[in-house]
Amino acid sequence: MDGLRPFEGETDEVTRAVETGTLYGVGMGPGDPDLLTVKALRILQRAPVLVHFCKQGKRGNARGIADAIFSDPSREMALAYPYTTELHPEHPDYVSALATFYDEASDKLAGHLDAGRDVAILSEGDPFFYGSFMHLWRRLKDRFPVDVIPGVTGMSGCWTRAGTPITWGDDVLTVLPATLPLPVLTERLKGTDAAVVMKLGRHLPKVRAALTEAGLLSRAVYVERGTMAGERVIPLEVKADDSAPYFSMVLVPGEGRRP
Amino acid sequence: MDGLRPFEGETDEVTRAVETGTLYGVGMGPGDPDLLTVKALRILQRAPVLVHFCKQGKRGNARGIADAIFSDPSREMALAYPYTTELHPEHPDYVSALATFYDEASDKLAGHLDAGRDVAILSEGDPFFYGSFMHLWRRLKDRFPVDVIPGVTGMSGCWTRAGTPITWGDDVLTVLPATLPLPVLTERLKGTDAAVVMKLGRHLPKVRAALTEAGLLSRAVYVERGTMAGERVIPLEVKADDSAPYFSMVLVPGEGRRP
Repeated sequence: MDGLRPFEGETDEVTRAVETGTLYGVGMGPGDPDLLTVKALRILQRAPVLVHFCKQGKRGNARGIADAIFSDPSREMALAYPYTTELHPEHPDYVSALATFYDEASDKLAGHLDAGRDVAILSEGDPFFYGSFMHLWRRLKDRFPVDVIPGVTGMSGCWTRAGTPITWGDDVLTVLPATLPLPVLTERLKGTDAAVVMKLGRHLPKVRAALTEAGLLSRAVYVERGTMAGERVIPLEVKADDSAPYFSMVLVPGEGRRP
Repeated sequence: MDGLRPFEGETDEVTRAVETGTLYGVGMGPGDPDLLTVKALRILQRAPVLVHFCKQGKRGNARGIADAIFSDPSREMALAYPYTTELHPEHPDYVSALATFYDEASDKLAGHLDAGRDVAILSEGDPFFYGSFMHLWRRLKDRFPVDVIPGVTGMSGCWTRAGTPITWGDDVLTVLPATLPLPVLTERLKGTDAAVVMKLGRHLPKVRAALTEAGLLSRAVYVERGTMAGERVIPLEVKADDSAPYFSMVLVPGEGRRP
């Protein structure tokens, strides 16, 4: 069930010499370290190489969640994005710089894996749900054993802390990146019972406009740093400013069947 | 961070006498007990009343996940639904029987909470995402302290085990209950990049028809008992029969930006 192989005590030295490490994608959950899974915790405690993404010159968000778990610089590897919000994600320079970044990062990890060392990549929320992990996974999955550990998503953490179930009965839930154009956001919001809008960043004014047009503004809840220190939950209508940090999203809870 | 209060060792007897218990909604994750959160595990180990839903005469699915954690009949309470699939959820008899069932169950739990005993309700996946827990929570939340512990959703467990990221870049994800009418399913599927179809039951032929009409059948993956014993992952096109047990869903992975 675990998939972890021993780091020492192997008796067959021949087998050991050719064995590669396993690539772990570790879901770090929404922020509260108590919301790590039992399996994620075990891998964080044992893996010899712990990788996290970060902005140039800053500490990574996923790494911050692990502060309560480990502090061993010799096991850590930080991968600093060449850009985060400086260029539009469709800009050719952005795409090319990111591709090079993921290629080079994969080569570094392959070195550890080839040497038999397990590598754990820390992913906020769930690794296969908008995770940067996926870009390394795609480059390494055919060469090495892979084990992905699903995590509690940021959105689950946020609707829990907002104290509001997100879907009842036959409610349809739509998850939207705020980076989409206004007409697309509006149209998708009009056709759903419940919604989660992620990746807010500087797009909050656009998200407000789309929610207003779709008639959903009065039901929208803004959640910042859900499950973490500095958590904030307020109706979006009441939020006066348009700032939205990395860990923030807008929820529109469903109103389906309630016997 | 935990919210658990001590069950013994209180020094102030006067305070203790008037203190009510806390209602916990415990996310049990997708099935593998290793995917319980650290916090959920702690509550399951300590709470004096552990509640699960079940079909008449059967063991509950959420209870099964906890087999590895506890086996203490004196702490357990099973709540057997009056109906599961015998009547349509919109049928007046179904709605009325369910409402009575939730009312009576809430009264039972209130008895324990009034007596100062913490009550933990086991919820498959995440409690606030299509969870029966929500119907008890709604009846009890204004009378007792409540603590909801988000869990890894069944859909995260399934896309992880299918080995396929569900959303890339700006992909929109739509979560659909298979209980919806065919035209609604088809329309929602046409307007999304990625999809999860839940609550399959006897609706699989309808789901196939909607996916075909939306041009998505060739991308659809069927996952049964994801993360559990008896797990099965196959392209939906290849699945010959139309049976779909409780723990099953259909995934349509997104195909968004991959630098």
